[in-house]
Amino acid sequence: MSAPNSRRLIAGMVGGGAGADVGKSHRYAMRLDDQYELQAGVFGRDALASRDIAAGLGVPQERSYTDYREMASAEAAREDGVDVVTVATPNDSHFEIARTFLEAGISVVCEKPLTQDSETAAELVRIATANDVVLAVPHCYPSYAMVRQAARMVRNGELGAVRFVDVEHASGWAATPLEELGHKQAKWRTNPDIAGFPSVVGDLGTHALHLLRAITGLEAERLSGRLQTLVPGRRVFDHATVELELTGSVPARVWASMAATGHNHGLRIRVYGEKGSLEWRHEDPHHLKVQDLAGATTVLSQGLSTLHHDASRLTRVGLGHPEGFLEAFANFYSDLAEVLRARRDGTAMPERELSFPTGIDGLIGVQFVEAVAASHYDDSAWKVPASFAPSRVEKAAV
Amino acid sequence: MSAPNSRRLIAGMVGGGAGADVGKSHRYAMRLDDQYELQAGVFGRDALASRDIAAGLGVPQERSYTDYREMASAEAAREDGVDVVTVATPNDSHFEIARTFLEAGISVVCEKPLTQDSETAAELVRIATANDVVLAVPHCYPSYAMVRQAARMVRNGELGAVRFVDVEHASGWAATPLEELGHKQAKWRTNPDIAGFPSVVGDLGTHALHLLRAITGLEAERLSGRLQTLVPGRRVFDHATVELELTGSVPARVWASMAATGHNHGLRIRVYGEKGSLEWRHEDPHHLKVQDLAGATTVLSQGLSTLHHDASRLTRVGLGHPEGFLEAFANFYSDLAEVLRARRDGTAMPERELSFPTGIDGLIGVQFVEAVAASHYDDSAWKVPASFAPSRVEKAAV
Amino acid sequence: MSAPNSRRLIAGMVGGGAGADVGKSHRYAMRLDDQYELQAGVFGRDALASRDIAAGLGVPQERSYTDYREMASAEAAREDGVDVVTVATPNDSHFEIARTFLEAGISVVCEKPLTQDSETAAELVRIATANDVVLAVPHCYPSYAMVRQAARMVRNGELGAVRFVDVEHASGWAATPLEELGHKQAKWRTNPDIAGFPSVVGDLGTHALHLLRAITGLEAERLSGRLQTLVPGRRVFDHATVELELTGSVPARVWASMAATGHNHGLRIRVYGEKGSLEWRHEDPHHLKVQDLAGATTVLSQGLSTLHHDASRLTRVGLGHPEGFLEAFANFYSDLAEVLRARRDGTAMPERELSFPTGIDGLIGVQFVEAVAASHYDDSAWKVPASFAPSRVEKAAV
Amino acid sequence: MSAPNSRRLIAGMVGGGAGADVGKSHRYAMRLDDQYELQAGVFGRDALASRDIAAGLGVPQERSYTDYREMASAEAAREDGVDVVTVATPNDSHFEIARTFLEAGISVVCEKPLTQDSETAAELVRIATANDVVLAVPHCYPSYAMVRQAARMVRNGELGAVRFVDVEHASGWAATPLEELGHKQAKWRTNPDIAGFPSVVGDLGTHALHLLRAITGLEAERLSGRLQTLVPGRRVFDHATVELELTGSVPARVWASMAATGHNHGLRIRVYGEKGSLEWRHEDPHHLKVQDLAGATTVLSQGLSTLHHDASRLTRVGLGHPEGFLEAFANFYSDLAEVLRARRDGTAMPERELSFPTGIDGLIGVQFVEAVAASHYDDSAWKVPASFAPSRVEKAAV
Repeated sequence: MSAPNSRRLIAGMVGGGAGADVGKSHRYAMRLDDQYELQAGVFGRDALASRDIAAGLGVPQERSYTDYREMASAEAAREDGVDVVTVATPNDSHFEIARTFLEAGISVVCEKPLTQDSETAAELVRIATANDVVLAVPHCYPSYAMVRQAARMVRNGELGAVRFVDVEHASGWAATPLEELGHKQAKWRTNPDIAGFPSVVGDLGTHALHLLRAITGLEAERLSGRLQTLVPGRRVFDHATVELELTGSVPARVWASMAATGHNHGLRIRVYGEKGSLEWRHEDPHHLKVQDLAGATTVLSQGLSTLHHDASRLTRVGLGHPEGFLEAFANFYSDLAEVLRARRDGTAMPERELSFPTGIDGLIGVQFVEAVAASHYDDSAWKVPASFAPSRVEKAAV
Repeated sequence: MSAPNSRRLIAGMVGGGAGADVGKSHRYAMRLDDQYELQAGVFGRDALASRDIAAGLGVPQERSYTDYREMASAEAAREDGVDVVTVATPNDSHFEIARTFLEAGISVVCEKPLTQDSETAAELVRIATANDVVLAVPHCYPSYAMVRQAARMVRNGELGAVRFVDVEHASGWAATPLEELGHKQAKWRTNPDIAGFPSVVGDLGTHALHLLRAITGLEAERLSGRLQTLVPGRRVFDHATVELELTGSVPARVWASMAATGHNHGLRIRVYGEKGSLEWRHEDPHHLKVQDLAGATTVLSQGLSTLHHDASRLTRVGLGHPEGFLEAFANFYSDLAEVLRARRDGTAMPERELSFPTGIDGLIGVQFVEAVAASHYDDSAWKVPASFAPSRVEKAAV
Repeated sequence: MSAPNSRRLIAGMVGGGAGADVGKSHRYAMRLDDQYELQAGVFGRDALASRDIAAGLGVPQERSYTDYREMASAEAAREDGVDVVTVATPNDSHFEIARTFLEAGISVVCEKPLTQDSETAAELVRIATANDVVLAVPHCYPSYAMVRQAARMVRNGELGAVRFVDVEHASGWAATPLEELGHKQAKWRTNPDIAGFPSVVGDLGTHALHLLRAITGLEAERLSGRLQTLVPGRRVFDHATVELELTGSVPARVWASMAATGHNHGLRIRVYGEKGSLEWRHEDPHHLKVQDLAGATTVLSQGLSTLHHDASRLTRVGLGHPEGFLEAFANFYSDLAEVLRARRDGTAMPERELSFPTGIDGLIGVQFVEAVAASHYDDSAWKVPASFAPSRVEKAAV
Repeated sequence: MSAPNSRRLIAGMVGGGAGADVGKSHRYAMRLDDQYELQAGVFGRDALASRDIAAGLGVPQERSYTDYREMASAEAAREDGVDVVTVATPNDSHFEIARTFLEAGISVVCEKPLTQDSETAAELVRIATANDVVLAVPHCYPSYAMVRQAARMVRNGELGAVRFVDVEHASGWAATPLEELGHKQAKWRTNPDIAGFPSVVGDLGTHALHLLRAITGLEAERLSGRLQTLVPGRRVFDHATVELELTGSVPARVWASMAATGHNHGLRIRVYGEKGSLEWRHEDPHHLKVQDLAGATTVLSQGLSTLHHDASRLTRVGLGHPEGFLEAFANFYSDLAEVLRARRDGTAMPERELSFPTGIDGLIGVQFVEAVAASHYDDSAWKVPASFAPSRVEKAAV
């Protein structure tokens, strides 16, 4: 990672307070490469607690707000206002909060699923475009160096034409009815009012789909889905299997689960091409397996001198020194920083082909959730995700 | 493996001559535990070549036949006639050959897919029952010691109720158009007249389904299938993905492929229960992975003193001495030998719960192929495999 | 990781400027948990370049020094002077620089090998004690959560008495004569004047030994060593194998290499006890393999709820989210921060059993290098590393 | 494996009766490829029990002997006498039995360690040469296809000059004092009168050394050894670590243990060359890992079309169908059969570079045991194994 080439970006945060793992992850990620200063925020609904958290994080007292609307207008008014705000609240509040900042001309990193329906998601994309600000969505797995290596290999044609893709994000974290035992995250993720009925598709399936899209560059053209509740008594679906047809009729499968007993995080992708195949697993993220036509398997490590620039540019330490989730998340923020600085300083925009996901990606994720649910309720009939022309919008949105 | 407790069984073979890997595998498997003597056969359509092969295999000249019908009647007439005949010819001749021996009162091992349609497969089951002989089908993967361990664990409830099963038999052997280069096996397996259009389902998908059934004891109640031809120009389907609902609405998936670029044999199963999960891969067959609710993975090896009897009884050498495919195939023949000897000698029939597959299993395989094809041609609509009450027939057939 | 409980520590650095990976690693590690502010430093011998680096790192101009002596006296004189200085220069300057800061009453993190001979290393330990400051040595591998888990398991007797230990730090980074191609690090690490003849023992062997000591709590009582130069023409030894007798006559082996062709970083340890054994590999640091007497292997992952507190307290993100080298390095700095803050604020000193390595550990490393060399030049005769009673000094040094 | 090209060889056996795993393994191995008929033997000291075993194995009654001397003279006198006799008795009787058959002009397969001292081992080699018969020693691990692949790669220079070799045969089978619980094999293997004090070196260390020699073609020129008794109360050494200098001063290490807690069989070798390295593990014998200079690892599978002929000729079933220990052992017997048939039939002798081990290899193993013991009792001083010019004798002995 190159050192930051100029002064740090000013960041704000809404949500992500005490007990919220996701907020901590965002802060670790912002901090690692020293390109952001967290200077403003609302860290929860309780004003006093939020203020304490802000103080602990070194946020100046006058920029510790009690309301996101107040924060948006105050920061927009400052000469040294925030360059970007991270929205790390539960799903049902994403839309209103993100909209408020985007309309105030402030770039936003909004957790996924972007919103609860594709209409509001599309609305956010439009607002970002109209206000000429960045809307980024932290699907951070493609920011792993070895996923970028995979994406470059596929896009360079090193596997030949893609023939089949198999992705799974099958976690074991909720294989028991944790929500009945007072587990906080389990509670809201199994509450259909907050997480939606196809909760697992929004939470994990969208990561799987995005990973597939980021590596292959292919889009889901139609799909057939099945939703199940594996843990008896659970109020949402916790398991989904989806058959897909990608661009060019390439078949694919997605398995998303929060009840895959015994699994840890369980994210894995395999891509089969006419000349070779590859596999990447999140439990061993600094390696990439490549299989050739004869049947030999080669394991590439992060840091190898033979990797593509897209991978090596995301490598901080030497060969054999594993980097993990926080480094990948930091790569997301680092790619974002390049764009935010280019906009702030009026310098040349960086290459965007393999970079951070935007609102379009978030919208495609929400469309995916809706199509899976629609298929499920129609006895797994094939459905076409609401079409949205990504290419046209993407430029506008960044 | 206990030593054979009495004189050897007399075996015959139809097919499996020169260049036929499958015939060799059967012979290795019969030989390993010294429970069979190959004493009769037709080893190909060319009479002279067949006779040469017979001689090389130590088959007496007078029992080297030129026609399976002649063999059936001659052997049936001998005092010391064959106890069992292995049918290892291409798929389209299975029915006639197996029928002939069964009707002559001779037990049969018939390669899978048992026949080309479920009607003839059911017919074979009926004939075997009517003639009180054994019809066995060499789905030999469940004869691996560690698969038996898995089956016993699941059936003992060590994983709790089964919630999801994922199986794949995704080989890379025909990821290129081998059939155009004169590859013999590729030629008939991609010929729809011999292998059927859903070739890959009959060839590999039936192994995957049988492995699932053998471990879990669950049956496919309905399914939704998709067939693809991944290698351009190929005349049959070489890739299939199937969504299943098993007994008790348990979801499952099967992926069968002969075009999974870079894979070797590619057979793998994962079973998820309420208390744990397990994984077995054919590329590493002497280990079984078991995952607990907390997320720890324990690797069990063949030969461990802590394994169930169903696994340890199939173990020939000490801990850490891998056994492979031929040993598993020999286990199939060894389990079969126990039944054949009990029938021959009038002794007590062995425990049959975890043993070799019979004609019923072969029939269920053929029904599976038909249901997948039917679903595929109906835009992946859910189909119910032709129902056949296994429990009722199974007793009869052995 | 708990949030910092009070204001940040003030850090300084000597060395670690442009092109120095090690300096970057220290800064990533300090930054991740937000417990340090880098506020002073000398970042190289070229004054202008150093000043530029300082500016890029946000170090105030008046605290960007051109000489470490000047820095030591200026910082010691400030009310808000540095709490700790990291020495990240080549080996031959460690002693003078570290001594200067320690004598000025400033705590020091000094890269390993601590110094070039055990006399000067012991001198540093004495100076640190006399001045009542901390001398820490960044053997950061034991700061991985899963190494701490291993250490706690061994110390709790979960493996029973330790019977054998095998460690290797066998890297492939210099398997070719890189030094002839102008590779900077290879140049000084193969220069006997800077790195010493047994370069690989000082550079990698000391990490291996420290990892062994940190997990088992045992010390090397005597050893027999062999040094080789595997890459023809190289001026230092690049490969060493050492046989050890640990406390209680427990046998052990160390293999250190910078020429293990094909390896990446190559650090691995296996510990065998009377009731079980364990293995940890740096290429897969978030897992720990534990083998039981029967021969089953259980793989524990970082983040499992069943791990010991020593491991779980070092875990930042959820189960299945790998943490890597920088997180381990950050754990080193975080453990150090607890001690530095306790001293600064006069609060209770944290538990020190499984924490960061100190000057004593650095000294033991240097004694190890000397004993290996002595044995090598005496035809591998057994040698006793210079005795230094660790227990007595350790309390003093912290 | 090619089919046997002519009538079977006649085999005899001494020892290997009831409860003797090793006898069973020899019989499985002889049977698999159908090149041997077991037609004579003494299967234990109890005449009645031996006769029962013979009957169960199909050995004609008149060739079931009660004494090996009787067997040797009777078989030597027969027109159709045995072509080869396998000696599978405890170590202390090898010499007398093997000598008797060799002197009777009968080829011998003698278990390792060949004899209890190098003088008698050399004597056997001389007798075999003098009588122009084959003396083979079943170090069967190099008969694995992937070990042959490794040997061919090293000998072809694909790794460049060999720089370091690390072998371990560290089993966990006797990590507890089994011998006190009446475990039969443990009893004699821990009895110094039968197994010798350095029992583990004779039993497992010789396999490790032979594997090293078979792959690299290098010989041990001097060594330094350490013996330990890890299990308290045990009467022999159960753990040994040896430092070696091979031909050309190449360093190497051997670790042999029967008390490596948690291990299964524990045989593994790593070979480092100037251009690459490789690793083979007996727990996963159908794969071979190859690492290149850059640090990528390629996994080769048995059956790949890209393997050398030395590997592919030992492959019975298709790619992805694992072969195991019995297949490797059968390869040993198959290579031996080629030589025995060539001698019997007067046809051309097969290529012997990568084939079965002979008495020379057995002798070198015994010399290794003696040198390790000598070094151990001389405080690990370097010792030169008794020199025996292998090249000169090898031709003679086959």
